[in-house]
Amino acid sequence: MQIIDGKIVAATIKEEIAAKIAEIVAAGGRRPNLVGVIVGHDGGSESYMMMKTRACEQCGIRSSLVRMDPDVSQEELLAKIEELNHDDDVDGFIVQLPLPKHIDEQAVIEAIDYRKDVDGFHPVNVGRMAIGLPCFRPATPSGILMLLERYHIETRGKHCVVLGRSNIVGKPIANMLIQKAYPGNCTVTVCHSATPNIKELTRQADILIAALGHPCFVTEDMVKEGAVVIDVGTTRVPDATRERGWRLCGDVDYAAVSPHCSYITPVPGGVGPMTIVSLLHNTLQAATGAIYKK
Amino acid sequence: MQIIDGKIVAATIKEEIAAKIAEIVAAGGRRPNLVGVIVGHDGGSESYMMMKTRACEQCGIRSSLVRMDPDVSQEELLAKIEELNHDDDVDGFIVQLPLPKHIDEQAVIEAIDYRKDVDGFHPVNVGRMAIGLPCFRPATPSGILMLLERYHIETRGKHCVVLGRSNIVGKPIANMLIQKAYPGNCTVTVCHSATPNIKELTRQADILIAALGHPCFVTEDMVKEGAVVIDVGTTRVPDATRERGWRLCGDVDYAAVSPHCSYITPVPGGVGPMTIVSLLHNTLQAATGAIYKK
Repeated sequence: MQIIDGKIVAATIKEEIAAKIAEIVAAGGRRPNLVGVIVGHDGGSESYMMMKTRACEQCGIRSSLVRMDPDVSQEELLAKIEELNHDDDVDGFIVQLPLPKHIDEQAVIEAIDYRKDVDGFHPVNVGRMAIGLPCFRPATPSGILMLLERYHIETRGKHCVVLGRSNIVGKPIANMLIQKAYPGNCTVTVCHSATPNIKELTRQADILIAALGHPCFVTEDMVKEGAVVIDVGTTRVPDATRERGWRLCGDVDYAAVSPHCSYITPVPGGVGPMTIVSLLHNTLQAATGAIYKK
Repeated sequence: MQIIDGKIVAATIKEEIAAKIAEIVAAGGRRPNLVGVIVGHDGGSESYMMMKTRACEQCGIRSSLVRMDPDVSQEELLAKIEELNHDDDVDGFIVQLPLPKHIDEQAVIEAIDYRKDVDGFHPVNVGRMAIGLPCFRPATPSGILMLLERYHIETRGKHCVVLGRSNIVGKPIANMLIQKAYPGNCTVTVCHSATPNIKELTRQADILIAALGHPCFVTEDMVKEGAVVIDVGTTRVPDATRERGWRLCGDVDYAAVSPHCSYITPVPGGVGPMTIVSLLHNTLQAATGAIYKK
């Protein structure tokens, strides 16, 4: 059994991105520029945005934050997005979700110029991904593909079972892995809350991707010997032995399942560190016009 | 075993659409208007376009054809699309595929205003479909959903196995059937050319959708007793007993498989007649602003 170390892969790819950017700048090119828009004062959003800013610094990406009041009107937010869409010095930008309830999240997502949509949530990017065209890919599934690739895990003809059908993980990873590409070319099954016989299906999985947000859902009896297990879950569960009183728990019962796997991602330190790397990767691609010509 | 009669369902839905349009017109509303763009003189495209025109007439939809030379430049075609995008009297339009080799098909598809894209091929419609939002759905998968619905076939929690991953059938039907909706809420497996153990998977299917374009691929031993079988294949195979020398053959060995099914679509007369109905449905929705506000 081999542990897929997301921290090491993330660090390696960050170095590669930093080297590429240094090269661009040395050749007289512009330094990529990412803008984050944050509405209100949600603690989770704040700390996540801080992590993104720090990662940008490490790679030599310029980044800045636009803060808006929690009671900002949808019109004001859309006007700001329009401004960023037309700012030639901004390569990509993200609007941190969730947004306050009075704002229509989908309208905001669709207002972003898809050529600057480095979160990969705009329907043009989602649609292009579904039909196998170059696009900005959403962070978590893109990070999973990077892990499979860096560990040279064979995917062609493998049966990949995805647990969960969220718009940010389950659906996109399923759409990516059926494409005629590497990583990809999998037979893909998507299971979810309405699936009656989940265990019967997970036991057939060569690659099992758990993205339900249900701690320790995947137990020993649900996994085939030698499977590749990717754990996307990150739920805080009470833990009196930790000073902060909780720990992160994945969707997989790691202690029981891992001995049966060929590869497995731990939580934390597996998929988690990759999500920000995907964002950096997309920002670099936006800056160089690798997906959409500038 | 019950035969799913696509001809009857198509005729019924056409009557419903005709009644709805008569109502709109009687109330002083505009009659919906569909434009077809056809490049060159491909026999298949011509006859398919004729069928669409006739179906429009039957429903009271205005329709017209824009013919362009086979050597039309991409710029001229894009200019025509731009004109149709801005013509307020045009509710929806389609560009008949395939296009001549010197034209970038995807560029043409993406040039169409997604609010008039009644073929459902624009990435905005593909992307919105993937995340479960209202959109123009592509014709064939939309027709399949209509058949499941009209025959009140239970889909929730059923295992749907899709054979084929084309952008016009396999991928979209998979994306539709995992949504939390009816028809939908299925566990969905997508198999394709790289799947090594297709039979093992098809035997698990409560609903089997064959869209490979491989005549009689699905044999008796591949289908579970009581399965619902939807046959999307339509390949011309030589048949000396027919005057024209060929007959249409589905992806399913109908004679051998049908006795084991709870429901099955024949070829011809199953999914085929539904595709044009989906187009009419989308055109009506475009005209009434049911998906995208006018």
